[in-house]
Amino acid sequence: MDHFPLYRQLASHYRQAIEAGTLRAGERMPSVRTLMERHDVSLSTALQTCRYLESQGIVEARPRSGYFVCHKPRSALARVAEPGIALPDTAQYVGINEKVSAILVQAMNAKVQTNLGVACGAPELYPNEPLRQAAVRALRQSPEIYGRAVPRNGYPGLRAVLAKRAMHASMNLSADDIVITHGCTEALNLAIRAVAQPGDIIAVESPTFYGVLQILESLGMRALEIPTSPQTGISLEALELAARTYNNIKAVVVVPHLQNPLGAIMPESHKDRLVTWCEANRIALIEDDTYALLTDDDTPLPALKSRDHTGNVIHCASLHKTVAPGMRVGWMSAGKWRGRVEMLKYAHSRPNESLSQQVAASFLGSGAFDRHLRRLRTHLYTQRQQVAQAIDGYFPAGTRLTVPAGGFGLWVELPDQRDSQAVFESALEQGIRVAPGIMFSNSSRFASFLRISCGTPYNSELDQAVRKLARIVDGARRLPDLPAQV
Amino acid sequence: MDHFPLYRQLASHYRQAIEAGTLRAGERMPSVRTLMERHDVSLSTALQTCRYLESQGIVEARPRSGYFVCHKPRSALARVAEPGIALPDTAQYVGINEKVSAILVQAMNAKVQTNLGVACGAPELYPNEPLRQAAVRALRQSPEIYGRAVPRNGYPGLRAVLAKRAMHASMNLSADDIVITHGCTEALNLAIRAVAQPGDIIAVESPTFYGVLQILESLGMRALEIPTSPQTGISLEALELAARTYNNIKAVVVVPHLQNPLGAIMPESHKDRLVTWCEANRIALIEDDTYALLTDDDTPLPALKSRDHTGNVIHCASLHKTVAPGMRVGWMSAGKWRGRVEMLKYAHSRPNESLSQQVAASFLGSGAFDRHLRRLRTHLYTQRQQVAQAIDGYFPAGTRLTVPAGGFGLWVELPDQRDSQAVFESALEQGIRVAPGIMFSNSSRFASFLRISCGTPYNSELDQAVRKLARIVDGARRLPDLPAQV
Ligand SMILES: Cc1ncc(COP(=O)(O)O)c(C=O)c1O
Ligand SMILES: Cc1ncc(COP(=O)(O)O)c(C=O)c1O
Repeated sequence: MDHFPLYRQLASHYRQAIEAGTLRAGERMPSVRTLMERHDVSLSTALQTCRYLESQGIVEARPRSGYFVCHKPRSALARVAEPGIALPDTAQYVGINEKVSAILVQAMNAKVQTNLGVACGAPELYPNEPLRQAAVRALRQSPEIYGRAVPRNGYPGLRAVLAKRAMHASMNLSADDIVITHGCTEALNLAIRAVAQPGDIIAVESPTFYGVLQILESLGMRALEIPTSPQTGISLEALELAARTYNNIKAVVVVPHLQNPLGAIMPESHKDRLVTWCEANRIALIEDDTYALLTDDDTPLPALKSRDHTGNVIHCASLHKTVAPGMRVGWMSAGKWRGRVEMLKYAHSRPNESLSQQVAASFLGSGAFDRHLRRLRTHLYTQRQQVAQAIDGYFPAGTRLTVPAGGFGLWVELPDQRDSQAVFESALEQGIRVAPGIMFSNSSRFASFLRISCGTPYNSELDQAVRKLARIVDGARRLPDLPAQV
Repeated sequence: MDHFPLYRQLASHYRQAIEAGTLRAGERMPSVRTLMERHDVSLSTALQTCRYLESQGIVEARPRSGYFVCHKPRSALARVAEPGIALPDTAQYVGINEKVSAILVQAMNAKVQTNLGVACGAPELYPNEPLRQAAVRALRQSPEIYGRAVPRNGYPGLRAVLAKRAMHASMNLSADDIVITHGCTEALNLAIRAVAQPGDIIAVESPTFYGVLQILESLGMRALEIPTSPQTGISLEALELAARTYNNIKAVVVVPHLQNPLGAIMPESHKDRLVTWCEANRIALIEDDTYALLTDDDTPLPALKSRDHTGNVIHCASLHKTVAPGMRVGWMSAGKWRGRVEMLKYAHSRPNESLSQQVAASFLGSGAFDRHLRRLRTHLYTQRQQVAQAIDGYFPAGTRLTVPAGGFGLWVELPDQRDSQAVFESALEQGIRVAPGIMFSNSSRFASFLRISCGTPYNSELDQAVRKLARIVDGARRLPDLPAQV
């Protein structure tokens, strides 16, 4: 936490208070003097705090009367409810692929005008020009880049920069600990294959990123879905209960920061407990930290891996969402499975090509990276608030909404068990793409949920789309009575 | 065969005669007039044939007396013997990874001056400059290349060019049939996973490319090694016998052209029989056609896939060896498993990045590609002959040598069961890297073989290295008595 200036920490504190409703829209912020006294900070820090909150559109200055909270708490809609801890299903050989493929193919074949369906930003949110320039430079500096075989485990320069950056997330890694992969997807494949065999049980969040379920299904492993809170992530009680029921859980896959699709961020105490528990129970902990850098608050969050002292945590991440959606550069640090992961990577696809690794190394090693992240975060924050407010305004009463503190998406529960797959299909006919809840679980528990992404700058077309979507939701059929397990 | 000019076909005919010893070094070539009469060709074609053979260094012109064969038949050393057809092992859960990893790590950590160990050409044999220029052009034409998500199944422009090129190998494919992968390695992973499950038996060539054994081991499948001829490839008798012994063979993986490490090229009649037999026996046929474009003779060879009428053949290939070792662009055409392969590719690593696909598309679509291939083939031919002659001259009596009609490597059997792993280790100490036979099989059958690659232009340093290697072979220990199965 001490990498970042005090005013940012204070601003984060007040933003949270506003979002929790402790300070409401229209209320006056504590005065600059109060801030100075209450937090024992200088005038300059107190002022910077207010100006930063203002720059983020959270408070507004009114002449001669100070700062006021300028928008209502995130949503007038109720939050999505917390899950129970009971395990609703037995561990399954998934069955997600057909469902997901059908949805992806439908979406691909449609004429999509408004894409609220993919967890990814619009091209203009990414540093196209610096990356392009870095590529041209690399091609000049390494004229034989295509004529030479690529180095095993990845381009050394990128591994070194990543090891350095890992310190921000409180991890202590050397370049040798890092293997470059084709996105986080390949890293997750290798991690899961390193620790488990076909037939084994892997605990995952529920709902979870569908990619994990696809991987498990394709490997003939069983997914055990663990109830997961939209606020605090995977339920540790439920996980502990699961381990008492199944004595052969080989690994847990967790997205600790901005979980997909919920947007949950695990509290530090949960991280601690999870790492310790996994170790004690000899269950490998696979951390998918794809979204860590996209929290609104740019104070870096410590990775689960930072608490790992025995090599039991495999850390996986990617530049695909944060630096460039056109880049397939991921990385992993596999702890005690490092040798096995290196071998598996070699057998899986051989090392990655050099060029985009050189581009990534040069960009990540420059000041432009942090500047880009600040800009991206601010955009995503604004876009998320705007879409959330539109949902708030247009969606039928009874809709529930989780607005995460970062990332691309909102998690929406439709009122009265409306069928979100029907909504997906009707919306697609009108050129609007969303992600129906059934993609994120092997059960039908989320059949009335939507993930709505906010990667595109808000404008009147987007506003129109949300309005249309609201009408579609309103008219959508209800789900048939669900099986008792749900 | 009719894509190529007549003089090439004639030249190929005479080269084969020379290599088979039908025409010997110093002998006179049939005169131009004889050629015209014998083959019913024009003067111009007859002349072109002789000049082409001359340009390849196979014949030389002597003033006023015609053309003479200018080097001895490929090798004075005996060829490596043909294998029997008995199945020497039961289908195994392989066990290759530790062996191969140990060898690769040893080689990586050594100071290698002369690399006779990797099946890949020196950087100067590749079209560095045209590729670099294509990359710069692509970056100019698509300034948002890194900011946009990459298209599913691969860059459409590359898939289209590959479909067109596939016609040269007599395949009829559309761009939609093709999925771009991370090299042939990923294609093989996906192909094997598409058709088989853990525990299943996969028939492979013996000796075979170690990557296939690694993949099978990492997937928990069993490899059944089928005796393979250095001349004609996998033994169909042995394969048929195997299918009578094991009723659960799920697939056969075959490298029909310039098999690694033997260099065998399957005769057309074998290809026909193999495709038909696999289909009749409901055994998937996975074709790894990595080396097809590297035959000395540039008449394109029809792929196994070209004989496939039911979608039972999965064709895999790569640009890694032929266009650029720094490029990890492979592709596959999965017949009736196309949908499953598309899904697996998505779950395995998501689609490849755009840039190198655009570079490949632009290069493959230009005349520079064929020019490059002609140049590469000629270099490889010359280098291979030179290394073969050096082995001929320096290696101890009793050495056996297979000189393939294309590609990177020679397959060498050491005399008196000398231990090739010991040779590998001693050579490495002297800065020379070779590939010991134990890498290419799960058995110890090839423990007295070496694969020697000829990717680097021949010079006095290389000559010295072969001489040193010969001395090491001469002094190497014998293998302990081998188990009866060998
Ligand atoms: C949690 C999570 N992990 C991994 C991925 C995929 O990562 P990559 O694109 O780097 O393969 C995604 C993409 O949606 C994701 O949401
Ligand atoms: C027969 C064969 N197939 C596949 C490969 C690997 O192909 P790629 O480098 O395209 O993954 C090799 C490389 O040695 C090979 O010899």
